[in-house]
Amino acid sequence: MLRNGRKKTTLKDVAKAVGVHVSTVSRALDERTRHMITAEVADRIIEVSRELNYSPNAAAYSLRTNRTRLIGVVIPDITNPIFPPIIRGIEDALGRRNYIAIVVNTDSTAARESALINTLLGREIDGMIVASVERQDKAIDELVEAGIAVITVNRRVDSPQVSSVVNDEHDGMRRVLMHLMSLGHRRIVAIAGPQGLSTGKTRHEAFQHFRKELGLANDPGTVVFADAFNEDEGERCMENLLSRDIDFTALVASNDRLAIGALSALKRHGIDCPSDVSLTGFNDMYLSDRINPPLTTVRIQQYEVGHRAAEVLLRHIDARDKIIEPVHDVLPVDLVVRQSTAPLAKT
Amino acid sequence: MLRNGRKKTTLKDVAKAVGVHVSTVSRALDERTRHMITAEVADRIIEVSRELNYSPNAAAYSLRTNRTRLIGVVIPDITNPIFPPIIRGIEDALGRRNYIAIVVNTDSTAARESALINTLLGREIDGMIVASVERQDKAIDELVEAGIAVITVNRRVDSPQVSSVVNDEHDGMRRVLMHLMSLGHRRIVAIAGPQGLSTGKTRHEAFQHFRKELGLANDPGTVVFADAFNEDEGERCMENLLSRDIDFTALVASNDRLAIGALSALKRHGIDCPSDVSLTGFNDMYLSDRINPPLTTVRIQQYEVGHRAAEVLLRHIDARDKIIEPVHDVLPVDLVVRQSTAPLAKT
Repeated sequence: MLRNGRKKTTLKDVAKAVGVHVSTVSRALDERTRHMITAEVADRIIEVSRELNYSPNAAAYSLRTNRTRLIGVVIPDITNPIFPPIIRGIEDALGRRNYIAIVVNTDSTAARESALINTLLGREIDGMIVASVERQDKAIDELVEAGIAVITVNRRVDSPQVSSVVNDEHDGMRRVLMHLMSLGHRRIVAIAGPQGLSTGKTRHEAFQHFRKELGLANDPGTVVFADAFNEDEGERCMENLLSRDIDFTALVASNDRLAIGALSALKRHGIDCPSDVSLTGFNDMYLSDRINPPLTTVRIQQYEVGHRAAEVLLRHIDARDKIIEPVHDVLPVDLVVRQSTAPLAKT
Repeated sequence: MLRNGRKKTTLKDVAKAVGVHVSTVSRALDERTRHMITAEVADRIIEVSRELNYSPNAAAYSLRTNRTRLIGVVIPDITNPIFPPIIRGIEDALGRRNYIAIVVNTDSTAARESALINTLLGREIDGMIVASVERQDKAIDELVEAGIAVITVNRRVDSPQVSSVVNDEHDGMRRVLMHLMSLGHRRIVAIAGPQGLSTGKTRHEAFQHFRKELGLANDPGTVVFADAFNEDEGERCMENLLSRDIDFTALVASNDRLAIGALSALKRHGIDCPSDVSLTGFNDMYLSDRINPPLTTVRIQQYEVGHRAAEVLLRHIDARDKIIEPVHDVLPVDLVVRQSTAPLAKT
């Protein structure tokens, strides 16, 4: 198994031990060519290669196939707890095909995204899964132009040319508003996410759409826009909303981190959640069930969205030079009702 | 910048544009050899290479130097919120030297760790940063034997031969016990972490050591051992402690996730934290300040421990075949007092 130190087992050693030609071993160890030989022989070769600790040399593989089996994964902020499960899903799907993820963080800046994508390209990656995209994303346009296999995950770009796997933001927001209405709330305000991101934009549009469709008050000044999906922005937006002297009984935050920031501001003003104000988040990130009060939120399929994106990307890579249509998967979401929402107090 | 599509800028193109030899360009673009040419020329070359979108080809670099500038990073569980900041620290330190991290998860199983390390070795990585190690770790022993540059982060192996950057568990536990004593607590029980991990072991030893040194009750049966650092185990251990009919006023959990699990069990039994039982965690992971009640815990330097580990590893790699002594860095910790601990109620 080891690179230095002892002599490394080669394809030839395995072939000799099994008593077959080197090319047969090569075929047996690649799942895309394994069907070309009998299952019995393939099993024997796999067994022996394990016994001999045969580890295929990636550089040699790369020279042979012009593939590196490296996939770049670009994340806006790995410290945001929704991304680790997404990465886990990506890794599991890639691992089944013996691909490896190279994970990098952009810190949510376009310049860093562009630089990291360049670095990844210098590594001759086979494809890229990007979670950091803005709706208009020059770096992604260039990847597509250059024929690099690319897919976005959790977010998408406006252009339909780039494949994506995202969550049903629209339905999530519908469920949030139906839930709040069922509790008697009619004056509902919102902290919207960044409008340059598909999640922020789509959730906001859905909020406006369903607030209207459900006949709810739709006054100007009842939505504040966050510059980023984090706690500090949630706090700032909540302060802003409170300073507007608007009468409201429920607040819809565009994600859980904004909701958590809003909670801090509410507490500081002595406003109780949920008895004074009901509050909802979006994502159902880790620990959103343990905060005070546990957060009513929309559960997105964090692991699954990553897993699916990796699978679609590998299909694109397998298709090689054939032109295949972009794929746009939208995964269903659930509403998780916890203690941050409560029936409207009778007054 | 792009691999396909348009013609790629080569080292030769840059050399021609600046009017120097190819080897001079090569030296200017490698920070380890940059000092060999004048700063003026180096600056000019860097400028032009940017203008021409020159992106060094990693495969070519690898052939030239026998380096891939890939570092394997092995994490036990990326969904544990202490690891993303550690990864971020690693990436930042590596990025400054144009190295890239390949992050993989072991799911805390030795078999998966061993398989992933093999996969990474197949990628001809230059070194490895391992956060998943057990105290006795065969996979790590084999890496060291084979002369692979390796360092452990956040945890360490028992063998002093493997470099490590960890946190001052001992001092953290001392601070926890001093704090609880200052609040009047004398009957203090513990949920210890897995004893096969250095964090679990060291924290437990420190707990026993200081409990004795401070003259606190030290009865058998006052410590329960968790099999893993997660919420489910915290809950199970708390139930176990409660079933033992021990009289206690404070509980020391070996990390925040165990503390959060313990909180759930306490709540289920109608035991209030902190008025009935004070509770402490360890790590100060993301959101430990937002749970109910906000957790008193030990703040470890999550980002810094990763950053430092990467720096030490690069020093090992730079030293190449020279034998250099293993490095063992221990970073200082802080106690963060929040609302999960309170003065002992007078009875």
